[in-house]
Amino acid sequence: MSESLFPERTDKAGIEEGEILQPKFDENGLIPCITVDDATGDILMVAYMNEEALDHTLKTRKATYYSRSRKKLWVKGEASGLTQQVVDLYVDCDQDVVMIRVRVSGEGCCHQGFRSCFYRRVTDPETHRLEFTQERVFDPKAVYGK
Amino acid sequence: MSESLFPERTDKAGIEEGEILQPKFDENGLIPCITVDDATGDILMVAYMNEEALDHTLKTRKATYYSRSRKKLWVKGEASGLTQQVVDLYVDCDQDVVMIRVRVSGEGCCHQGFRSCFYRRVTDPETHRLEFTQERVFDPKAVYGK
Repeated sequence: MSESLFPERTDKAGIEEGEILQPKFDENGLIPCITVDDATGDILMVAYMNEEALDHTLKTRKATYYSRSRKKLWVKGEASGLTQQVVDLYVDCDQDVVMIRVRVSGEGCCHQGFRSCFYRRVTDPETHRLEFTQERVFDPKAVYGK
Repeated sequence: MSESLFPERTDKAGIEEGEILQPKFDENGLIPCITVDDATGDILMVAYMNEEALDHTLKTRKATYYSRSRKKLWVKGEASGLTQQVVDLYVDCDQDVVMIRVRVSGEGCCHQGFRSCFYRRVTDPETHRLEFTQERVFDPKAVYGK
């Protein structure tokens, strides 16, 4: 990567108590992003952003991630129509995680057809059994064509 | 690591639509965990768990992470008293992120004295200026002694 799109990381005080975004990208150039439904407060998904995705998200207000499987920028909803309009972007204390609050167009965000990717909870610590906590809100085959 | 504490990962259908927890630990043996305040729905923090931390969290219902800086298991609140009682543990579609809903004892969870680690939001995509969105709820020096 050539010149950074974001300010350099300074010291602990600057990072944790400062008023300038200094995001930490990991060894793969990525930062995790938690996406929250601004209307309900529900956590919808977790994905990753590289510098370009974070910059694009901030400037266009369209949630934009980096797809690790497809190895390219991923403007959420380009394929599915399930776009995410960014209301606010937060950063955590040590600036190695971002969190966006979004307005979702369409019925959900998970490629499995659920409103949120967190649709199962553990019911037993020994058997590791999962319970579904959501109903499907759309047909993934119809939306994603696969 | 010797024998795994969790079921082996199967195929896409098993992982995404199955009813058995099959968590994916990354190349460092860690899985990210989002911690949510069960009372308010606010995202409190993001930390990492290794197999042992996830197992300990499920079995004791005390939120337990792996500290990457201290390189050891970290039962949240052992030092600060700000413990987290786990109400539910969710996993996302591809099972590479977990999310816990917790009851917090004490006034917050961030070592900076805020209730949540996400206390700043970006106000300008060009200058990258941050705005504080929370007030400190405790004195970190008094709680952490530093």
